[in-house]
Amino acid sequence: MANGLPNPLLTAGAARSLVDSVDAFLFDCDGVIWKGDQLIEGVPETLDLLRKMGKKLVFVTNNSRKSRRQYSKKFRALGLEVTEEEIFTSSFAAAMFLKLNNFPPEKKVYVVGEDGILEELRLAGFECLGGPEDGKKNILLEANFYFEHDKSVGAVIVGLDQYFNYYKMQYASLCIRENPGCLFIATNRDPTGHMTSAQEWPGAGTMVAAVSCSVQKEPIVVGKPSSFLMDFLLKSFNLETSRMCMVGDRLDTDILFGQNTGCKTLLVLSGEKLLLLLFHMCRIILPIMPNQVSNAVWTCIAIAGVTTLSELQDASNTIHPDLYTNSIYDLVGLLQQ
Amino acid sequence: MANGLPNPLLTAGAARSLVDSVDAFLFDCDGVIWKGDQLIEGVPETLDLLRKMGKKLVFVTNNSRKSRRQYSKKFRALGLEVTEEEIFTSSFAAAMFLKLNNFPPEKKVYVVGEDGILEELRLAGFECLGGPEDGKKNILLEANFYFEHDKSVGAVIVGLDQYFNYYKMQYASLCIRENPGCLFIATNRDPTGHMTSAQEWPGAGTMVAAVSCSVQKEPIVVGKPSSFLMDFLLKSFNLETSRMCMVGDRLDTDILFGQNTGCKTLLVLSGEKLLLLLFHMCRIILPIMPNQVSNAVWTCIAIAGVTTLSELQDASNTIHPDLYTNSIYDLVGLLQQ
Repeated sequence: MANGLPNPLLTAGAARSLVDSVDAFLFDCDGVIWKGDQLIEGVPETLDLLRKMGKKLVFVTNNSRKSRRQYSKKFRALGLEVTEEEIFTSSFAAAMFLKLNNFPPEKKVYVVGEDGILEELRLAGFECLGGPEDGKKNILLEANFYFEHDKSVGAVIVGLDQYFNYYKMQYASLCIRENPGCLFIATNRDPTGHMTSAQEWPGAGTMVAAVSCSVQKEPIVVGKPSSFLMDFLLKSFNLETSRMCMVGDRLDTDILFGQNTGCKTLLVLSGEKLLLLLFHMCRIILPIMPNQVSNAVWTCIAIAGVTTLSELQDASNTIHPDLYTNSIYDLVGLLQQ
Repeated sequence: MANGLPNPLLTAGAARSLVDSVDAFLFDCDGVIWKGDQLIEGVPETLDLLRKMGKKLVFVTNNSRKSRRQYSKKFRALGLEVTEEEIFTSSFAAAMFLKLNNFPPEKKVYVVGEDGILEELRLAGFECLGGPEDGKKNILLEANFYFEHDKSVGAVIVGLDQYFNYYKMQYASLCIRENPGCLFIATNRDPTGHMTSAQEWPGAGTMVAAVSCSVQKEPIVVGKPSSFLMDFLLKSFNLETSRMCMVGDRLDTDILFGQNTGCKTLLVLSGEKLLLLLFHMCRIILPIMPNQVSNAVWTCIAIAGVTTLSELQDASNTIHPDLYTNSIYDLVGLLQQ
């Protein structure tokens, strides 16, 4: 409740104590580092500064369309040097979940999703079917048509799938319903995602909702906000969660994930230029008239109609980050004040 | 609690008093009259008998794949004489919902669904887009790609759609999210349906769940168990709901619809031959050893693994029909005893 706000705005002082109190920053990617294939302004400078300050950087994404290897390529294409080991994707988490749970090697995995999941499963030594290929398959609901499925499928993984169709929905449903003990795993349940820079698109949550409705069963979620990913992260690095800060643009995945795992949390907003200006103004008013900032911020929000901030402000919201700001680039300006 | 059962089995006496106490029978179609394109055994004889007894017959289906005209053709193809006026589909209900709510004629309707919805909308004078045609459209999630949608869409209708894809999900989401006042209408929320006689398939509920997740909004439901369809039915016929019996195979749609609208309710099961035999045996035991019937029935259910009956028996179930039996054909045998 600092600044008179229900969720405190990141100020120069808050930025300095945040950086002093953590050894690692965990970044969500879509909406924080990039939008679609477009890098968000000031990201390279921010990551450089944090690395120079000796901070460990980790990238945790629910987007299962790519594998860790493919994400590392994407980072490089955008001019950022990030290694595979610094990347934790929900596609990787799904494969690791099976490995950790001793999934029998003779069983197969049916994938409602894209290449990232297939690649991570194959790297982990599992045989899989489905994926983009089944996106070309149609069904004709004709009399006496019987839809066959592989009885040796022991797990169905559902992730974001731009080739989602009725064929895959029925294949996944039959495996989960009819193959004894078949696991139903969701990479994540994000309702939407920044698949392109221009607008939001249906997220993995929509495919998960469809399959979950068909089989009338809830999935095991391996991505954020489930703490499953954190287990691997902690095994890979010698870190304490209390000395980590999770940075993300979604309350229900990123901030909740950070809270579920004991991290500090920083919410970033849409990265819109209009907001940047408003936040800059608020930071100027803050030292002079602290009590006026709350009203000023919420008035700006009402005018700008920012979804994430409206959610944050909503009385029904129970997820409150430790801090929030417009974009991670704000750290650069604030730390240099 | 008659027969010592939580939900009473239809006996000769119960069948006679049911027929005496109602003027009309409302039948669900998928799983009651047919499965996919296959007529369920004894249906023609049962409908004939009820018509001879002066009962009004009405067919109420949540399956939006066909219009009333197309359903009337299907009935005829299966050897049943049923007029369009006796058929109430969720596709028709969706069009009537817009008509009743004075949907502006200059606005368009985007359809996630099949021909039945398009035909009913056109018959009601509305301009629509989407439907099976958009099932052929793909998107490539490339940088700077912007998905355009028609700003004059004032309603999105989501029904069962074997051509469901990511394109339609995004089109529907953008209309609901960005067109001011755009209605989000679901024909129904059935998780599964008997699209073919051989097995169950994902129902309209799966498409509705996906779109609902994407837009984070609940739809207006016009099919069962919503009482919306009943309003039309009552306008068409001079009947009282207390003198109607709703016959269906789903607790959460058919039986709930009957109860929501004040009808008597009769649940029919899967129509399997094994069950027919078991029920026959139970009816023989009933007059001799009433207290043994409960155990006998539930033991049979446990062995047969019948989903609907397991649901009915489940402690968490709150929807209890007035009566249940194997198939509507049982009425013929029981009424002739």
